Amino acid sequence: MTMNLNAQWVVGFVDGEGCFHIGINQNKEMKLKLQVLPEFTVVQHEVDQQVLYALKAYFGCGVVRKNHGTRLCYRVRGHENLLSKIIPFFEKHPLKTRKHVDFEKFRKVVFLMEKREHLSADGLEKIQQIKETMNSTTFLR
Amino acid sequence: MTMNLNAQWVVGFVDGEGCFHIGINQNKEMKLKLQVLPEFTVVQHEVDQQVLYALKAYFGCGVVRKNHGTRLCYRVRGHENLLSKIIPFFEKHPLKTRKHVDFEKFRKVVFLMEKREHLSADGLEKIQQIKETMNSTTFLR
Repeated sequence: MTMNLNAQWVVGFVDGEGCFHIGINQNKEMKLKLQVLPEFTVVQHEVDQQVLYALKAYFGCGVVRKNHGTRLCYRVRGHENLLSKIIPFFEKHPLKTRKHVDFEKFRKVVFLMEKREHLSADGLEKIQQIKETMNSTTFLR
Repeated sequence: MTMNLNAQWVVGFVDGEGCFHIGINQNKEMKLKLQVLPEFTVVQHEVDQQVLYALKAYFGCGVVRKNHGTRLCYRVRGHENLLSKIIPFFEKHPLKTRKHVDFEKFRKVVFLMEKREHLSADGLEKIQQIKETMNSTTFLR
């Protein structure tokens, strides 16, 4: 049976364990040879995998996959999921740690991609610049 | 201004970042030369210190102290605080990860100390045995 989660529990847990990440990978299929891949992830030791499945059920999207060693990862990719589920949730229920800054940048990149800016060299550079300031304690509020 | 916290946010954040720890330290003042020191802690990078001060305000006890490097720690010690504030909170609002197992063991030790069992060799050994199974992924549910 999947455990039921409360919105504020989800925010607290993501403030602790969540990650908003912009991957930029080589991809020969793309015109600029680079693919932008935004993803929201939460990693846990496998003993707590039921929490990851509960997040998957709560958001109604994403997958639970093996990560490194004994760790598992709940991961959401795909614009439709990010735009209709993940982003609206964290707009409605703001994060309380500096992770809210990463979320704002992540959201900005997803919106830029929605306007197809990642397909131009200028847009891609803008996204790369945003990415460089994320998930780091060097770049503060 | 201290941010307001919601109980479920606190549970989610502690599920991610909290620690229930039983310290057993040498102390020549004690009859058995060992002092049992239960503590509840939450560690964060200093950029998120306002979250630690918010936890301090929320629980109405504990201190915020320097930890290692650029990290700070919210820490609650003292039986009165643990028995009247921390333990009742997590009894009322259960943790969802395996940390709830550590909390149950922590609670058991604090109750044993309340009965002054840590002052006898037998009681101290019982506490040491409980401590050895805590905060580890080797000892599962």
